[in-house]
Amino acid sequence: MVKVAIVGATGYAGAELVRILSGHPLVNLTLLTSRRYAGRKFHDIYPSMTGFVDLTLKEYAAQDMCDSAEVVFMALPHKLPMKLVPELIDKGKKVIDLSADFRFENIETYEQHYQPHTAPATVGKAVYGLSEIFADKIRKSVLVGNPGCYPTSVLLPVIPVIAGNLVKVDSIIADSKSGVSGAGRAASLTSHYCQVNESFKAYKITSHRHNPEMEEVLAKTTGHTCTVTFVPHLVPMSRGMLSTIYCELSTGVGDAAIRTCLENTYADHPFVRICPDGMVPDTLNVKGTNFCDIGFSVDKRANRLVLIAAIDNLVKGAAGQAVQNMNLMCGFDVTAGLLTTPYPL
Amino acid sequence: MVKVAIVGATGYAGAELVRILSGHPLVNLTLLTSRRYAGRKFHDIYPSMTGFVDLTLKEYAAQDMCDSAEVVFMALPHKLPMKLVPELIDKGKKVIDLSADFRFENIETYEQHYQPHTAPATVGKAVYGLSEIFADKIRKSVLVGNPGCYPTSVLLPVIPVIAGNLVKVDSIIADSKSGVSGAGRAASLTSHYCQVNESFKAYKITSHRHNPEMEEVLAKTTGHTCTVTFVPHLVPMSRGMLSTIYCELSTGVGDAAIRTCLENTYADHPFVRICPDGMVPDTLNVKGTNFCDIGFSVDKRANRLVLIAAIDNLVKGAAGQAVQNMNLMCGFDVTAGLLTTPYPL
Amino acid sequence: MVKVAIVGATGYAGAELVRILSGHPLVNLTLLTSRRYAGRKFHDIYPSMTGFVDLTLKEYAAQDMCDSAEVVFMALPHKLPMKLVPELIDKGKKVIDLSADFRFENIETYEQHYQPHTAPATVGKAVYGLSEIFADKIRKSVLVGNPGCYPTSVLLPVIPVIAGNLVKVDSIIADSKSGVSGAGRAASLTSHYCQVNESFKAYKITSHRHNPEMEEVLAKTTGHTCTVTFVPHLVPMSRGMLSTIYCELSTGVGDAAIRTCLENTYADHPFVRICPDGMVPDTLNVKGTNFCDIGFSVDKRANRLVLIAAIDNLVKGAAGQAVQNMNLMCGFDVTAGLLTTPYPL
Amino acid sequence: MVKVAIVGATGYAGAELVRILSGHPLVNLTLLTSRRYAGRKFHDIYPSMTGFVDLTLKEYAAQDMCDSAEVVFMALPHKLPMKLVPELIDKGKKVIDLSADFRFENIETYEQHYQPHTAPATVGKAVYGLSEIFADKIRKSVLVGNPGCYPTSVLLPVIPVIAGNLVKVDSIIADSKSGVSGAGRAASLTSHYCQVNESFKAYKITSHRHNPEMEEVLAKTTGHTCTVTFVPHLVPMSRGMLSTIYCELSTGVGDAAIRTCLENTYADHPFVRICPDGMVPDTLNVKGTNFCDIGFSVDKRANRLVLIAAIDNLVKGAAGQAVQNMNLMCGFDVTAGLLTTPYPL
Repeated sequence: MVKVAIVGATGYAGAELVRILSGHPLVNLTLLTSRRYAGRKFHDIYPSMTGFVDLTLKEYAAQDMCDSAEVVFMALPHKLPMKLVPELIDKGKKVIDLSADFRFENIETYEQHYQPHTAPATVGKAVYGLSEIFADKIRKSVLVGNPGCYPTSVLLPVIPVIAGNLVKVDSIIADSKSGVSGAGRAASLTSHYCQVNESFKAYKITSHRHNPEMEEVLAKTTGHTCTVTFVPHLVPMSRGMLSTIYCELSTGVGDAAIRTCLENTYADHPFVRICPDGMVPDTLNVKGTNFCDIGFSVDKRANRLVLIAAIDNLVKGAAGQAVQNMNLMCGFDVTAGLLTTPYPL
Repeated sequence: MVKVAIVGATGYAGAELVRILSGHPLVNLTLLTSRRYAGRKFHDIYPSMTGFVDLTLKEYAAQDMCDSAEVVFMALPHKLPMKLVPELIDKGKKVIDLSADFRFENIETYEQHYQPHTAPATVGKAVYGLSEIFADKIRKSVLVGNPGCYPTSVLLPVIPVIAGNLVKVDSIIADSKSGVSGAGRAASLTSHYCQVNESFKAYKITSHRHNPEMEEVLAKTTGHTCTVTFVPHLVPMSRGMLSTIYCELSTGVGDAAIRTCLENTYADHPFVRICPDGMVPDTLNVKGTNFCDIGFSVDKRANRLVLIAAIDNLVKGAAGQAVQNMNLMCGFDVTAGLLTTPYPL
Repeated sequence: MVKVAIVGATGYAGAELVRILSGHPLVNLTLLTSRRYAGRKFHDIYPSMTGFVDLTLKEYAAQDMCDSAEVVFMALPHKLPMKLVPELIDKGKKVIDLSADFRFENIETYEQHYQPHTAPATVGKAVYGLSEIFADKIRKSVLVGNPGCYPTSVLLPVIPVIAGNLVKVDSIIADSKSGVSGAGRAASLTSHYCQVNESFKAYKITSHRHNPEMEEVLAKTTGHTCTVTFVPHLVPMSRGMLSTIYCELSTGVGDAAIRTCLENTYADHPFVRICPDGMVPDTLNVKGTNFCDIGFSVDKRANRLVLIAAIDNLVKGAAGQAVQNMNLMCGFDVTAGLLTTPYPL
Repeated sequence: MVKVAIVGATGYAGAELVRILSGHPLVNLTLLTSRRYAGRKFHDIYPSMTGFVDLTLKEYAAQDMCDSAEVVFMALPHKLPMKLVPELIDKGKKVIDLSADFRFENIETYEQHYQPHTAPATVGKAVYGLSEIFADKIRKSVLVGNPGCYPTSVLLPVIPVIAGNLVKVDSIIADSKSGVSGAGRAASLTSHYCQVNESFKAYKITSHRHNPEMEEVLAKTTGHTCTVTFVPHLVPMSRGMLSTIYCELSTGVGDAAIRTCLENTYADHPFVRICPDGMVPDTLNVKGTNFCDIGFSVDKRANRLVLIAAIDNLVKGAAGQAVQNMNLMCGFDVTAGLLTTPYPL
């Protein structure tokens, strides 16, 4: 049993980590921190978990953290983790950070889209936590920069077809749609029920910070510089993310080549399910799970490929993939704690 | 490992049984039937469960059923189970029936609200499956009539306060609210998204068939004839049921007596959670779980008690309680297969 | 054309006033105020109304208000209006206040549930704006305390049956359900999409401030002191309110007497629709309208009456009734500006 | 006052026609037909309109229709209108058909995607009812094929930029998202609340029948053969449609040229609103209205244009545009009956 702590346990990603880790057979959840709710029981904030998690929330304290845990999940807003993580790494802890602070290899890119980076020396120790693609590196790492939800839903279907030269690298358009939990638990007009209900809209059109994240990872996994046109949208639902991705097909590529490529790439990866013909990914089918369901369609008339990927933004898009990465880092079965039966609805 | 079959596996209650039983550590799920989808894989109908349940749906056949299973869950519309159950009982199977066919001791009451009963001899072998209240009888039974969702949400809070003489028996009013899945998976205008969204309404006011069910059970558990005024409502959500119950307090009864009564009654029952002061039951907190969360408030000015109970209508209100009953009938721990960590949202 | 101003135009009730009044044939909308958005166009905050309302939002200033408007709608949180209204009344303006500040005749009751009242002398000039019941007084008044949404939905069905001695005065229980817009536009965890979606819960059980409001009005309209047990609930929808009300029938009272009473009371009131037999009120049927749909059912076995009323909490429960009151105060047809055709969904 | 009939008045588009036309100042609504509900009052099916529409639904009969109406709206499923329309045209009626039967100039295209056309001679008399683009032809026409909802949301933003040579004609990708009412009122698993809620998915990927409709209209309005990649998605909401459209920019084209083009094209068209910088189209802003809100963003890095258009699929995407066409055909102001103030939420 590994001792595990969660920093920022009461945000939505943090609470989802609590859910998964409290049921993980190889984990002993020892410490949960929260600035806002320190001193209160976790289940006072999330009453659903009454009887499952009896921990009291604490303020973050480095010594306490080091005494309590071997693995630390950071579920904080960007900017905070880079202040805390270096010390934990120095003390020999394994860290999975769900913010953007350790996702970028190129610090300039990070600084251009976020803020000055205060722990550049630690960046070099971090591995990008797209589990299926970087599994070997993650297994050996002590620090994982857990991917953004949008990049996860775009990269898993796109990397294989670019790497396989099945599509033109400069033709990628990602039209993504996310449930509201992606915006976090903080109260804001954006997440007000009456503003979301019966509303569908795009936001941060071609200017979202997950755009450069996708592009850096595409470059390092495929060797190609890809300029991705990325438009995120907000869907009136709590959980779920679906990305519809358009690319031009390379000459002579058809259905069979795409299917073979996707199925081969993910043959040994239990959390990626390639939909059979006639079935399309649906956020309802991955709700509460760590799966990424991928489907595709070839538009022969236009010589385009349409890739579609569905994930639960809080699970494969955040907490679930983070636990998958912990499983890799700790030498556990990659599915440990992540295979509770999905709900029919 | 007990071999288990589900008859009517593709309705919502049936699919929820598949979900729970496929993850149950002491169950081997052997046979799923469906009239409509026979010949297809279960996961073609519920793609979320791809990789978890690989069974092909079959037409119901008694011999096949008897060969395949020791325990049979019937998740069919009323009227069908009474034709099938007697043979299964004769063959020594344990049966949990989720329809109303075996809920009533008094066949006349059943016939008045449903239709003529074609298996009256079998009715006498059935036990009403309100797990917490009839646990001892259920343990010894071979046939359980699994309670209706509304009666479950009303009886669990009401039985203790009536049995304890804390409220006046002729004063019970139950104002209940249900998510849409309670109406089943069959397509109808009633469950059309556009008719449900932004709609809140009552239906079958004081004429719902769960009303006599509540009253029969109240009579046999408390010894009192109670006329319950019962009004169900439809809520624009998929899962969840909340009942707000009003009763007149007996002389001198206050908060403390009510709390003691409820906490004592359910002290050894892990699926009933009495909310602490200041917390109210919320369907979100029981979503996907087998819990019944109960809260209450005393209106001193009016000398009334307000009891509130929240359940997931498909779990504690149907499939979950059915599995809880199977656990009792098979001598398993009552919580086996039913304690996956709840979701924070 | 009467010149009209709205104080607090960007809250949900304020914006709904803008909607109705901008289409009112006898109104010239001259001034909109907003503390938060002063200096911006109203349609920057509510882009749906682009092309319909071109006013720029201003800070409140008494002189500006007096110069601009003959009728002033106050759509501010409780406590603020009592500071502003006396001066407006002194200057000869007609005021409709949507807060609680001028709803109570008994200042002590107000102070017990809200805060000290700083304009007690003005309270005596106010009329309670339940339009159908107090139409005569409203016509002659200069200050209307517009009713709360819950009291509107409870009082319209209840007053006639109590006044007609058809039910027992001490038996009233109101189980009410409201859409989320009732909590206002301010961002809070309570109105966060992910906390509301798939959630149904009660709140402020028997302690909501609309409870004494109902009771004061029942006393003055029926001559009876009624203690009402009132439990509000939150429904996952934007608009709409439904109250289910339980009362004990007086001896010998049946369906016909109830129907006659309700139909006679509201025969000349176009905004109250008594549902025919077999039809039940549904929030979807009153969405965006000023109607109160009332239905009922007699539970003969229990000798109880179930009254059900549906309104749109922002229209008949707030802005619509406020305009109805303005119509009365200004001698306009009571339906002026309030009869746009309802939507089918 | 023109006498108007609606054939198929109880489907969602039909009911929306009833709503608009019952409030239209120049229309006398004389006849509503329904196969399913003949003999019942319209307001029995849509109780919201009680007090507004008192007509009894009738079976369709050609003579009755000809006697009752000068203008006929056909709101029937495809295939039925082509049997009924020729006679009405022969009798001198003006017809607006909301099905696909008279949308295509090229009968072969229609037959390839629908079924054999039984009224080819009448096709030549029909004008495609995209009001802003074909206004001159519509004014002189006796038969309008009212556009599909998806084509309306795609063509209005795309036609100007193609016609103006601002984008490459072979680069159009339309990623569209629709609320559930687009699937009609017929009960089906697809529109079951529990299948839609928390679900987001694509359907008929690159094979939807609105795809050839878009392409035929683009060809005849711009002179270019455009192959559009079109992927529709289903959003968990009742009303609303948003299309996000991607195109490659022609050399040297930037923000200013796009804005000028769009604003000039629609300067005299009150139902198209070009969003100012910093504002994005949102279905919530057009709910219940006949507006098409258009926004755009230039992705300079990728040299792509992102066009976004939001409509209410039942109004500008069906009934509203149909009434707009009637206004043109009858010489009324184009906005007659279509400018009720939008709701803030």
